[in-house]
Amino acid sequence: MENLRLGILGLGQIGAGLYTILQRKKAYFRREIGVNFDIRKIAVKSKTKKRTVRVPKGLLTTNALSVVRDPEVDVVVELIGGTREAKKLVMEALRCGKHVVTANKALLAECGDEIFSLAYRKGLWLFFEASVGGGIPVMKALREGLAANRIDSIHSIINGTSNYILTKMTDEGWDFEEALIEAQKKGYAEADPTLDINGTDAAHKLAILIRFAFGGRVRYSDIYCEGISRIRSEDIAFAEEFGYRIKLLAIAKRSGGRVEARVQPTLLPKSHILANVKGSFNAVLVRGDEVGDSLLYGRGAGPFPTASAVLSDLVDIAKLRTSSFEGTMSPMRALRGRLKVKTMSSILSRYYLRFRVVDRPGVLGRISQVLGSFRISISDCVQKERSAGSVVPLIMLTHDSHERDVHNAMRAIGKLNIVRGKSQVIRIEEG
Amino acid sequence: MENLRLGILGLGQIGAGLYTILQRKKAYFRREIGVNFDIRKIAVKSKTKKRTVRVPKGLLTTNALSVVRDPEVDVVVELIGGTREAKKLVMEALRCGKHVVTANKALLAECGDEIFSLAYRKGLWLFFEASVGGGIPVMKALREGLAANRIDSIHSIINGTSNYILTKMTDEGWDFEEALIEAQKKGYAEADPTLDINGTDAAHKLAILIRFAFGGRVRYSDIYCEGISRIRSEDIAFAEEFGYRIKLLAIAKRSGGRVEARVQPTLLPKSHILANVKGSFNAVLVRGDEVGDSLLYGRGAGPFPTASAVLSDLVDIAKLRTSSFEGTMSPMRALRGRLKVKTMSSILSRYYLRFRVVDRPGVLGRISQVLGSFRISISDCVQKERSAGSVVPLIMLTHDSHERDVHNAMRAIGKLNIVRGKSQVIRIEEG
Repeated sequence: MENLRLGILGLGQIGAGLYTILQRKKAYFRREIGVNFDIRKIAVKSKTKKRTVRVPKGLLTTNALSVVRDPEVDVVVELIGGTREAKKLVMEALRCGKHVVTANKALLAECGDEIFSLAYRKGLWLFFEASVGGGIPVMKALREGLAANRIDSIHSIINGTSNYILTKMTDEGWDFEEALIEAQKKGYAEADPTLDINGTDAAHKLAILIRFAFGGRVRYSDIYCEGISRIRSEDIAFAEEFGYRIKLLAIAKRSGGRVEARVQPTLLPKSHILANVKGSFNAVLVRGDEVGDSLLYGRGAGPFPTASAVLSDLVDIAKLRTSSFEGTMSPMRALRGRLKVKTMSSILSRYYLRFRVVDRPGVLGRISQVLGSFRISISDCVQKERSAGSVVPLIMLTHDSHERDVHNAMRAIGKLNIVRGKSQVIRIEEG
Repeated sequence: MENLRLGILGLGQIGAGLYTILQRKKAYFRREIGVNFDIRKIAVKSKTKKRTVRVPKGLLTTNALSVVRDPEVDVVVELIGGTREAKKLVMEALRCGKHVVTANKALLAECGDEIFSLAYRKGLWLFFEASVGGGIPVMKALREGLAANRIDSIHSIINGTSNYILTKMTDEGWDFEEALIEAQKKGYAEADPTLDINGTDAAHKLAILIRFAFGGRVRYSDIYCEGISRIRSEDIAFAEEFGYRIKLLAIAKRSGGRVEARVQPTLLPKSHILANVKGSFNAVLVRGDEVGDSLLYGRGAGPFPTASAVLSDLVDIAKLRTSSFEGTMSPMRALRGRLKVKTMSSILSRYYLRFRVVDRPGVLGRISQVLGSFRISISDCVQKERSAGSVVPLIMLTHDSHERDVHNAMRAIGKLNIVRGKSQVIRIEEG
């Protein structure tokens, strides 16, 4: 029987979920996995706060540093979130020779270099399955299940709030605001949903995926990030007519010695497996050179799915800490040479373009001409609700074009007197 | 650097794929994973046979027993298939203290008790990721990624040939025979496709999934197994009208202290994630008590995906063989008490029923009456191509009913003089 002594930082939703499972399944873990999880201390902000979970007073402390320094703690589980306090505590835990499990995506995305370096130098295990895709064992798949593969691309739905909103807009015809309010009611979206809606949360997770899928340092701020708030119901309807659905994707591709890395609303063919990931579910599709396309799908959030991922990391540490194996220390891959991220202006993509144009003869020709002058060719086109003289939507799908050219063409088209209001540009992935 | 000395049995498609990757990525594995894979011997039937892969003559031997007994071999990789010779060799490898990796689903499904027992008694690692779902890291997810979960159900598409055929019948309107011929042309189906088409291959894989998902011995012959050859194009079209697609599913559920275990063509709602798994892809959806629904998807066959899974097992052995950790020895879970499989007659399901009936007034009422007398109630009904006096299809979907009742009702209905030819029964899962 392996005895693993835990110091837990934070008793919020995830902490409470973890505590609940550790209590409920104590005998199960001993019998089925051969590990006795022994909670030594839990650091909290306030010992008197009312909680959904009942914890013996003696386990709680407000002194988080005393937990990470406790000589009777083998593994520190960081569940407080944020980057300031969490970083200080994780770094100190590593300095004190503790293995670390964390669910903190912002921390690893923004301070990964320092944290992974220290873990590597100290020869400690640092696992973070819960930081990406909640309960989905995606980091394990990348690290171990697909170890024989060079990963060539990632296409992922890793923000449940955005996917829930887009699903409701698509399947129920709701508009963005209605869907957001419902997401908040259901507890999928935070009171302040900014980081979900603007793509930041997905970009944090993508930064972590990239480090371990491609092997190397990546600057979080180099990841292009665009949220879903500018997607209109009409875009969803037009996309549908062309056989596409709109999803917020976090995408990374190897591309000529560099890496493309972007979070963006994306048109995906309806038959694409990711186009069928609905509601608050998450999914990560990776392409490996041996295995081909491989997808993992599940609950990307929630106390119990997230705690399930934390527990899988803890079991791994129980297994590995007595092994003399020195390869694939998880921090190692994250510290190879810096991965260079392509600028967006140099990427190649297909595009969905929507204009509001005055409905008069020659308009279509004029816009095509401008696009053509920027080397952009049209694959599909539809003009809706024709009625001479009024303003109508004009939708065009392009063949592969350079982002820079599309950007310049849109600026030129915006100046035409036949175009009214703001135009829309959404990238297309064929998958 | 960990040095792992391999003895490989078999140099067919998978063996050649494994050999190719081990050559091509030798430096990669040393650098990225910290393992040097050292192939000591490869057992083949004939040393002079022409092969797609070039192997130094000195590595080959026709004496497979000498490979499993070689004191310079750490791990035996069994890739010869079949149950007779493979069993003899795997048992002898374990007796000689070798860890074993195998891709052999028939062997583990039919002789699992003996093999897992011996591995357990000898304290050896026995891994078999490639035996289920090809390159998909599903055994690893069950064993480790979802270790904190009690698995309550499995719904899986684990025969690529059947899924390819059903996809072509659905999306292209082909009939069964056309689709089968194309599957054979593409190399998805064997020259003799019987084991794919009749569900045996999927049942083998389900037996392995059940052992490790639910933890216990399961008698392979207790798994109900029904293939796709009786599915007609019209069933697919009628299912479509009701909002369903037909898939060959391998299903296992915990059910009141027992286990339901069956391979069967199944109507699934079109929006179900498994209904959108197309072509020769495989997918396994498991429901865990903490994590909820979790799905893994990818290539279920092919030399390189399969070799990718074998390599993931080999990396695990490199990591674990020096660990003092004794929990979750993979054989252990497979040897807990016997899981009792429910008889089919006692299961509860919704059903799709298709009759050929003489089109005359009162027919619908007569059939409903018989169904009602067996406590079967109808949720949906459609009668097609009405033309008085001719024989027309009548389709009914039922509410949850007992298999025994449906069986008896169908027999009674078959005797009515208004019913012509063979009727069709397909189970429905709402997922």
